[in-house]
Amino acid sequence: MSPTALIGVDWGTSNVRGFRYAANGEVIETRRLEAGLKWVVAGAWAAAFETHFGDWLQQAPDAPALLCGMVGSRQGWSEAPYVECPAACHALADHLHQVPGTSLRIVPGLCTVDADGVPDVMRGEETQLVGLDVSEPSAVCLPGTHSKWVSFDGQRIDAFQTMMTGELFDILSRHSLLAQMSEPGAADSCAFARGLDRAAGGSGLLHELFGVRTLRLFDKLAATAVPDYLSGLLIGHELASITDLVSADTPVTVIGSQELASRYVTALEHRNRAVQVVDGETAAARGLWRIASRAGMVTSS
Amino acid sequence: MSPTALIGVDWGTSNVRGFRYAANGEVIETRRLEAGLKWVVAGAWAAAFETHFGDWLQQAPDAPALLCGMVGSRQGWSEAPYVECPAACHALADHLHQVPGTSLRIVPGLCTVDADGVPDVMRGEETQLVGLDVSEPSAVCLPGTHSKWVSFDGQRIDAFQTMMTGELFDILSRHSLLAQMSEPGAADSCAFARGLDRAAGGSGLLHELFGVRTLRLFDKLAATAVPDYLSGLLIGHELASITDLVSADTPVTVIGSQELASRYVTALEHRNRAVQVVDGETAAARGLWRIASRAGMVTSS
Repeated sequence: MSPTALIGVDWGTSNVRGFRYAANGEVIETRRLEAGLKWVVAGAWAAAFETHFGDWLQQAPDAPALLCGMVGSRQGWSEAPYVECPAACHALADHLHQVPGTSLRIVPGLCTVDADGVPDVMRGEETQLVGLDVSEPSAVCLPGTHSKWVSFDGQRIDAFQTMMTGELFDILSRHSLLAQMSEPGAADSCAFARGLDRAAGGSGLLHELFGVRTLRLFDKLAATAVPDYLSGLLIGHELASITDLVSADTPVTVIGSQELASRYVTALEHRNRAVQVVDGETAAARGLWRIASRAGMVTSS
Repeated sequence: MSPTALIGVDWGTSNVRGFRYAANGEVIETRRLEAGLKWVVAGAWAAAFETHFGDWLQQAPDAPALLCGMVGSRQGWSEAPYVECPAACHALADHLHQVPGTSLRIVPGLCTVDADGVPDVMRGEETQLVGLDVSEPSAVCLPGTHSKWVSFDGQRIDAFQTMMTGELFDILSRHSLLAQMSEPGAADSCAFARGLDRAAGGSGLLHELFGVRTLRLFDKLAATAVPDYLSGLLIGHELASITDLVSADTPVTVIGSQELASRYVTALEHRNRAVQVVDGETAAARGLWRIASRAGMVTSS
């Protein structure tokens, strides 16, 4: 086993990703566990960490460890206070939160407040952003149950917005009248594009959702096409609402896993946006290393 | 028992309203039953009608009967083909659908197709519209699980749109993460107004729904205020999306039962709209009589 320079952990709501780094910052081992916050019994965080990464610690007792994600939330191991947005990347390294009674540190989340006084938050995504190689003002899209859109130039996280797209898709698919009108089927890219186009028409999401029902009623949409049409409708509305955050000609970086990211790429290209995709795990691993380096936890090579 | 000139029935998805009319059109008896389409076993419509209104028929075997609502849908007693919108009120009377094997007639529903080729439908609401006393171009709002907005001048139903507002409120309240953040409490008109104002800000429903969570997270909204805030948010978005259908200075008539109608009245007055409320049952009863009269089923006095 190569010497461990850093243990990095992205500990989210559902999943845990552990990274063991060599001294040059290279990830020499990755561990993927379905052991996120929702599976951790209150008060049992230290035991959970020991279970998942005890062998790494044993072999490198002096290796520093840096965590990010929901582990730093109020429901997590120890609450890491938010850093306010706009925030320079180094501000994250300057505000690491030490878990009491341990030498572990947690990357703070980010918070922001909009003109209406409504706050927004992220935990974990800030570390993925630091892991990006971006050198000009960009829009970053992080799809998920609650997808996030960020205005970022590689040095400073300027603003961001969270959307309930994924969760709404899920509850509409399972609990609305559309559930009865929908059947699973092969991916239907035409239905997805139709949903995207419909969302651009401007008649409002509440009306367009009812339209899924009437399209079925008049046999203008197949039951197997409903999931992709609905997905296109919701993602289309998401894209329509980010215009305040990012201008139409800003290049977009999508951070995410294969399937969901490709859905957003299709949607963005359908809107004639330039898009690149970065794998979420890679971004998180790189971000943890960079933050640890900036905080002097490791000697960056 | 006074002589029966007409039996009218508004047979919806959940409820049935039966009206027995005198020769002058006055309703002399009203029957309210929780016995809508969803409670009727397939093939058992005649039996259900007999159960609910057999005594009325027995006492007036020659009285005509006119039905409206979901009873005329594909899942109903007998499908009454839609009349296409725009539709003059008399077109409804001209296209009554006779239930095979009976002398009962059903008011047709209305359908329309928008510029995107997406259809919309109503069944039952068209009869309530005919029951309105409107003499100038008006916007009519029919709140419900699927609320409808109609452009109507008393003679012609010009256009309409259905919104999934009520259903979305219901599934968000029960199945989204907001369910865990919400507690029942007294009606909170301030929270409702805050939701309405938030919806007018233009940052998009998907983002504003997530904002309910963050407002709770930062203690900027009480758990007991969540239901009214969410209701304001959704109704606010509904109002924002009807601008294509009805101009800002068109007077609005809300047809509905007390509680839901008053919520829309508050929302509309918050947007400085002139509003009047008409009771839904009264409108349906009057509409059935007027359509029966126009169709020559009764001699209108």
